[in-house]
Amino acid sequence: MTKPRTAHRSRSFKPVKPLTPVNPLKGDGTGQWKTALTCIEPNKILMRGYPLDEIMGRLTFGESIYLLLMGEVPSPSIGSLMEAILVSFIDHGATPPSTLAARNTATTGAPLRACVAAGVLGFGRYHGGDIESCMQFLETGLELVRKGTSYRGAANAIVQGCLEAGEPIPGFGHRFHTRDPRAARLFQMALELEVEGGHVQMIRAVELAVAALPDGQALPVNIDGAIAAVCGDIGIPADIANALFIISRVPGITAQAQEERQREHPMRQIDPKDHVYDGAGQRRLPDKRR
Amino acid sequence: MTKPRTAHRSRSFKPVKPLTPVNPLKGDGTGQWKTALTCIEPNKILMRGYPLDEIMGRLTFGESIYLLLMGEVPSPSIGSLMEAILVSFIDHGATPPSTLAARNTATTGAPLRACVAAGVLGFGRYHGGDIESCMQFLETGLELVRKGTSYRGAANAIVQGCLEAGEPIPGFGHRFHTRDPRAARLFQMALELEVEGGHVQMIRAVELAVAALPDGQALPVNIDGAIAAVCGDIGIPADIANALFIISRVPGITAQAQEERQREHPMRQIDPKDHVYDGAGQRRLPDKRR
Amino acid sequence: MTKPRTAHRSRSFKPVKPLTPVNPLKGDGTGQWKTALTCIEPNKILMRGYPLDEIMGRLTFGESIYLLLMGEVPSPSIGSLMEAILVSFIDHGATPPSTLAARNTATTGAPLRACVAAGVLGFGRYHGGDIESCMQFLETGLELVRKGTSYRGAANAIVQGCLEAGEPIPGFGHRFHTRDPRAARLFQMALELEVEGGHVQMIRAVELAVAALPDGQALPVNIDGAIAAVCGDIGIPADIANALFIISRVPGITAQAQEERQREHPMRQIDPKDHVYDGAGQRRLPDKRR
Amino acid sequence: MTKPRTAHRSRSFKPVKPLTPVNPLKGDGTGQWKTALTCIEPNKILMRGYPLDEIMGRLTFGESIYLLLMGEVPSPSIGSLMEAILVSFIDHGATPPSTLAARNTATTGAPLRACVAAGVLGFGRYHGGDIESCMQFLETGLELVRKGTSYRGAANAIVQGCLEAGEPIPGFGHRFHTRDPRAARLFQMALELEVEGGHVQMIRAVELAVAALPDGQALPVNIDGAIAAVCGDIGIPADIANALFIISRVPGITAQAQEERQREHPMRQIDPKDHVYDGAGQRRLPDKRR
Repeated sequence: MTKPRTAHRSRSFKPVKPLTPVNPLKGDGTGQWKTALTCIEPNKILMRGYPLDEIMGRLTFGESIYLLLMGEVPSPSIGSLMEAILVSFIDHGATPPSTLAARNTATTGAPLRACVAAGVLGFGRYHGGDIESCMQFLETGLELVRKGTSYRGAANAIVQGCLEAGEPIPGFGHRFHTRDPRAARLFQMALELEVEGGHVQMIRAVELAVAALPDGQALPVNIDGAIAAVCGDIGIPADIANALFIISRVPGITAQAQEERQREHPMRQIDPKDHVYDGAGQRRLPDKRR
Repeated sequence: MTKPRTAHRSRSFKPVKPLTPVNPLKGDGTGQWKTALTCIEPNKILMRGYPLDEIMGRLTFGESIYLLLMGEVPSPSIGSLMEAILVSFIDHGATPPSTLAARNTATTGAPLRACVAAGVLGFGRYHGGDIESCMQFLETGLELVRKGTSYRGAANAIVQGCLEAGEPIPGFGHRFHTRDPRAARLFQMALELEVEGGHVQMIRAVELAVAALPDGQALPVNIDGAIAAVCGDIGIPADIANALFIISRVPGITAQAQEERQREHPMRQIDPKDHVYDGAGQRRLPDKRR
Repeated sequence: MTKPRTAHRSRSFKPVKPLTPVNPLKGDGTGQWKTALTCIEPNKILMRGYPLDEIMGRLTFGESIYLLLMGEVPSPSIGSLMEAILVSFIDHGATPPSTLAARNTATTGAPLRACVAAGVLGFGRYHGGDIESCMQFLETGLELVRKGTSYRGAANAIVQGCLEAGEPIPGFGHRFHTRDPRAARLFQMALELEVEGGHVQMIRAVELAVAALPDGQALPVNIDGAIAAVCGDIGIPADIANALFIISRVPGITAQAQEERQREHPMRQIDPKDHVYDGAGQRRLPDKRR
Repeated sequence: MTKPRTAHRSRSFKPVKPLTPVNPLKGDGTGQWKTALTCIEPNKILMRGYPLDEIMGRLTFGESIYLLLMGEVPSPSIGSLMEAILVSFIDHGATPPSTLAARNTATTGAPLRACVAAGVLGFGRYHGGDIESCMQFLETGLELVRKGTSYRGAANAIVQGCLEAGEPIPGFGHRFHTRDPRAARLFQMALELEVEGGHVQMIRAVELAVAALPDGQALPVNIDGAIAAVCGDIGIPADIANALFIISRVPGITAQAQEERQREHPMRQIDPKDHVYDGAGQRRLPDKRR
């Protein structure tokens, strides 16, 4: 309830693209605050300047999310990567803690939106936060490269930094997967779409530096690391990457809460280890989709 | 904390597609609960049977959301409508109460996911709930048609029902718009993609019945009504339509909270009437997108 | 996003004590909305008219909650019951779904307030909602009494009503307890403090009616039922009783989330059946407190 | 979704009072996790070892909250301070951002618990977070005192530290109040109850150091600062003080959301500056309460 008199801006409150001079204290005589996202007038909705009814049927949901967050329509290559990034997190089964928070809320009979909100609250420090950490980690390495160090040297330096601080290497390792199929696919797409740049090169160098560590344990790049590198190369800043992560996880949370409501008994005790998958068996996409 | 001994299933806890016999009391000897959404194995993630890395780059985020919620890859026509439905709600400016809940949370310095959760909680009875009500409303009319009434007669009957109950007509009217451009566009797409069916026919008949009301006030179909009709015609049940609404509103909530964090001063008092739009002016999509 | 043009008030939006003529559409020329809870002026905070610094040290937190919600300082008897009602729900161990939602959020590294919010979302239909249902149920019986039926006859009638509708009897039965010690204690206090009235008499009659049912299964009054009856007798309406339930459960949710953060490993899978209690053994309050 | 392989404990995940050896990885052969809060057995609920039905009517809600969080029944003096601390935050009018988040959620027709959850999410960095910062700030000063510096010298040193870092002095200053009546009252109670110690002495020294600053602007101790000092002196650690803050703000959030539901029109646009107080005029507590 109490706020220090001396106004101060947190370090994460950094303006990305200030369209107009920002005056937080509203001392500019206008007494108005600004939004650059969507303009609503009677019978007209302009999102980032484009009529929403013109976007419908012409941009996909994924492209529209990029437009909303970044301000411009993505190129076809960046649009494809955007879809792939959003799809990569769409669901990760019934056991992540955020999913269990949503299912435990669903079993009390709460409405779907309350279950989704409970799930979203769990996208935290240990759960999704790795994208932002990895982007900063890669940036530290690229800073060394810009000063003349080789990628290999920079990678060794930042990996050594983590080891000395006793911290995990952001973007590497996974609870379940020794080789994350989503990461491999995203790197392949970035290569084919010719958007690879310094961030991907840096994470590849880190991968080699990690593999050469004496304990012989090969830690794979995970999907957080792959997204961090690709976002870096296509110009998406860390806070927007974090927003994309939240958006991309919502369909899975929603579907899991919906399934809990439909298939299970209210007020049950949910043991995450005690479930089986009884859905469709493994199958391939139709030919025309491949 | 207290639960009635007699277990009972709410009416909204209706299984849509029970893949296996559901035994809520787990008396089947297996002691296991089931999920049909995503199967996680080491180095393998199958969503509805498809490897997630195969989906990446081949299905869009919108198509993947349909697959996750409905269990099958959508046809190209249904995929296009899915994208358009998701895009239609992507953002509605800075003033809806859910957006203000998210912005008020952002101004306290809360992390982005907390702002998104606060916003999601406001997708309630008066805010998005109209899709589900309208689907039930149209269904009541179609039930009459199946019993032999004409569309016109059925429309008059259900409109009269609302008037007598003193209730608003679900899917009609809007705070800002006298003609909702998103509704018109969605109906046009449904016509062009040849998926129009009884639900669209019914809502068109209701539109005429409403226009003929003595008070002479033409209430337009709104976007909730258009989505209700189109979802009905492409086989999306009401609870999935509700899930789609929540998913589609999250990018806007996220972008608005993000903008609050970046452009405004912490702990400010947010007056929704006191804002101006200072983003891009009205523009057209690039030619190749039209 | 869409709101029906015809404004309508939900049945639960009923004004309890309109202090001034309410004009929701602000057509009264003042353009102002009203609050009757707390008045903030420089160096002065008046809660329901009393300076907050005068309340500190003179009213307990429980009495202050009553004052805030009901508008007046409670009598000593009602104050004692208020404390007992709030204490009765303070914690119910590690396994209620709302607690598990909070713990699953805590294990992701989310801040404490996010865990509490996730827990609060689970105080829903099947979890705490019984107080309000039971108050309506008792009210139906008391309506019959007012029309001349005996308590016994009214109790039989409303129990029969539940059985015929296939619904559980609100305020009776518990997952764990065959005799809820909190309910017995609350009834004892109401008797000793001489605030028993028609609602307690009615729930006692229902208890006898339930015990006489042919299946011979004695369903005990649970704490929700006891609170419903006592709140009815001391003049607390159903919506305030619901607010009290939410407030009373927050300390337990908070303590459980805090314990999860302090004692357990991040990102663990929480099996509710797999826990043991390792706290203080059973003990008695100090003599002066008995 | 991804977790680093190397398990690591955040600095804030520090065990306060480990009752048994904690084995987060469950390698102790038992496969069980522990809770020390509440033991549930059929017909028995032990909170911190005391039967809940024995606590009802014997401890207040405030004392029970202390017992739940700290593990022991408070002494009468500490119990009184606990009530006063909880009361001091009970409501702060209609305009704090957390309250506006709750009211904006209420106006969408969301259930009360969703409004409360939205409000709780706003108890963040700039809103309540000052208690924890101030406790750390005072601790830094007391560390200097333990090493031989005078209180006056230590106070000057830590105030200078804030000024040099360009940071506000935690626990000082307020948006509305130049003299916070709640802080004065809490200090008076601590004095009368004879629980004053080094933390209160330190904040008093800081107050003098601040008053002597050249800009001549007297920044008063605010309620966050007073609570920080008193909690320090009665042995409540910073994370429990943070939990108390959340618990104490819930009744106000709940009452404000309830009032919004009862008195205002759904889906209204809430301008925080546009409200008037129309509740009870200023009054004194009854004689027997003074």
